Amino acid sequence: MIDLEKQYQEYLNKNIYINMSRGVPDARQLDLSESILDVLRSGNCLKINNIDYRNYGLLDGIPECKDLFSNILDIPQNNIIIGGNSSLALMYNAISKSMTNGVCGSTPWNKLSKVKWLCPVPGYDRHFAICEYFGIEMINIPMNEDGPDMDLVEKYIKDDYVKGIWCVPKYSNPTGITYSDETVRRFAKLRPAAKDFRIYWDNAYAIHDLYEEKKEHLLNIYSECKKNNNEDIIYIFTSTSKITFPGAGISAMGASENNKKDMLEQMKVQTIGYDKINQYRHALFLKDLKNIMKRHADILRPKFELVERIFSKELIGFATWSKPLGGYFISLNVKGCAKEVVERCKKAGVILTNSGATYPYGIDSSNSNIRIAPSSVSLKELEIALRIICLSVKLETKQS
Amino acid sequence: MIDLEKQYQEYLNKNIYINMSRGVPDARQLDLSESILDVLRSGNCLKINNIDYRNYGLLDGIPECKDLFSNILDIPQNNIIIGGNSSLALMYNAISKSMTNGVCGSTPWNKLSKVKWLCPVPGYDRHFAICEYFGIEMINIPMNEDGPDMDLVEKYIKDDYVKGIWCVPKYSNPTGITYSDETVRRFAKLRPAAKDFRIYWDNAYAIHDLYEEKKEHLLNIYSECKKNNNEDIIYIFTSTSKITFPGAGISAMGASENNKKDMLEQMKVQTIGYDKINQYRHALFLKDLKNIMKRHADILRPKFELVERIFSKELIGFATWSKPLGGYFISLNVKGCAKEVVERCKKAGVILTNSGATYPYGIDSSNSNIRIAPSSVSLKELEIALRIICLSVKLETKQS
Repeated sequence: MIDLEKQYQEYLNKNIYINMSRGVPDARQLDLSESILDVLRSGNCLKINNIDYRNYGLLDGIPECKDLFSNILDIPQNNIIIGGNSSLALMYNAISKSMTNGVCGSTPWNKLSKVKWLCPVPGYDRHFAICEYFGIEMINIPMNEDGPDMDLVEKYIKDDYVKGIWCVPKYSNPTGITYSDETVRRFAKLRPAAKDFRIYWDNAYAIHDLYEEKKEHLLNIYSECKKNNNEDIIYIFTSTSKITFPGAGISAMGASENNKKDMLEQMKVQTIGYDKINQYRHALFLKDLKNIMKRHADILRPKFELVERIFSKELIGFATWSKPLGGYFISLNVKGCAKEVVERCKKAGVILTNSGATYPYGIDSSNSNIRIAPSSVSLKELEIALRIICLSVKLETKQS
Repeated sequence: MIDLEKQYQEYLNKNIYINMSRGVPDARQLDLSESILDVLRSGNCLKINNIDYRNYGLLDGIPECKDLFSNILDIPQNNIIIGGNSSLALMYNAISKSMTNGVCGSTPWNKLSKVKWLCPVPGYDRHFAICEYFGIEMINIPMNEDGPDMDLVEKYIKDDYVKGIWCVPKYSNPTGITYSDETVRRFAKLRPAAKDFRIYWDNAYAIHDLYEEKKEHLLNIYSECKKNNNEDIIYIFTSTSKITFPGAGISAMGASENNKKDMLEQMKVQTIGYDKINQYRHALFLKDLKNIMKRHADILRPKFELVERIFSKELIGFATWSKPLGGYFISLNVKGCAKEVVERCKKAGVILTNSGATYPYGIDSSNSNIRIAPSSVSLKELEIALRIICLSVKLETKQS
């Protein structure tokens, strides 16, 4: 114990600053997409199928990008809407629109006495922030190994005020788990009391596997919904944020005919159209999507493996953690001392995601979950950070 | 008369299709910005002031673009927010946010029994569409030669339910007029009953002059508001839509410290940030902004002059029209037969903006205003279209 404290004290004097708070790609990953800047040049003809991509028009996106996302999500081109640089903005817009104008003709949610939302926990803080912004009451749903607790989901949707659920179905943020086929099938069969209930299926890590040979397989929710004549229940989202450049990519929404029509009614008021030049740039550049994802994995994999190696050497008995095969996060569960560990790390210069951030309203009542985001730092930095994290967990676990 | 009808009939047999419904730039104008595709290449360092522009971050935009729009709008860099490819989306978002979450802490407009809005007419149909989408009651304000009827504006803002006004203060859409200094000063001094009243100052044509030597001068509304300690009353919008590529540009909002803080509270929930790569591309490309705008004018000017030449030869006594020194539109006022003229043109293959479109709810009660958008067509096409328009005006005026 005294020894651990001494080791920790030594780090305090080292003037460390390592920020691991967000799941941002590191510069080497961004370098993989440098040549996206070269695919369009002056003099290239940007008039395609008689439409000048430099001008206004094509509200729902260019066919080449619908094709791209149709392949990524395995849903028909006709069910794709291409958005701007942020899938988060598409989700925000969908909820904002539901608040003011309803869903496919339903009563606007603002006119109701309350709106409730199901939030699998731990989950993505930016999802929760949207609900909080609109005053939507969030209900925690525990995450199991195979996805959200579906018994609870099926129970809560009997409440007419429950209008949606957040899902990151593959390599979930932060637990890294992928929903089982059974979970996906149960989602596809949901018959909520509220006709304007929607599953917000944020498939952010659809193709973000760490291992070529050990990919998680996510059942196709859209096909499953179709089988149940239930395709209006689902909104699917994804983006290239972790494929090309995080701030300068393109996003997409997958939606049934009814939902697409309903969304475009809103979109056509909001904008004349999204950036078709950047869409076209992506369609051209991502012809070899597989290879790019493989190279991302080559950069990310050693980081995830380092976390696993150090945690399994240091933390058995002190904590449990996830061993994801893809995505951007590892979920570390300590024994009622998450806040203290994050604080202690911060003192030593290691910035983690705020404790509680993975829960609605920032309240992790068991004070146990810490999100580890290893992507943005170098292996060398990561090793130092992990040493400090392990020391902090041990010190705080002993004390508590 | 028989002669006019005969001439019109001849056009009917010519299988003409000329679409002048929207104010879109023609391909030659887009060619002026072709080399924006070349300013960024792979290997250029995109890490600027220690921020990697390829990655997440900088919610309110890159300094280089704040500088660009600070020059265009003549307001401090610190009062600029850079948006995505659409200033319309910034306006939509501002109203949407006001509906659900209020303005600087005010009651959300959705909680009020009604919301009213002042709409100078004729005006921009997409502005009116936003109000209509949110169920905001629109009140027509006549446009005079020097801007909206300010006596009426000053009267209506005594009503607490009146929350805003649309303004296109320079080369107004569609009248082409520029607000006088006196009008701007009266706007800057407004003290509405509603503390959450905002002027939506859509300065879309801020630098879109047709003549180097005859530029309209628009008084700086932000400085005037400052003088009156009234800078929270104004939201300023503009974009590069008619500078570079209409669908692939960048937008900006000018806002007081209070308004900026309030808007960013919303934006940070909606998105992690806008496209910084495209921002940087614009900042680099638009270093010679003056020259580009001069070349746009060289393409647009002959079209506006052709309209003036043909109208003044053909339509004196039948109609009146504006003679703008910039912008994208000419406003044609006929004698109670706008709908009939637009229909007659359509039959002959000339598509004009729908009659009524320049009024809230599409209702031009005097059936007199037609928006002429000469930008997208060639001079040759324009001449044919103008002949057909003139014939149609004469035929419909005689008949009515």
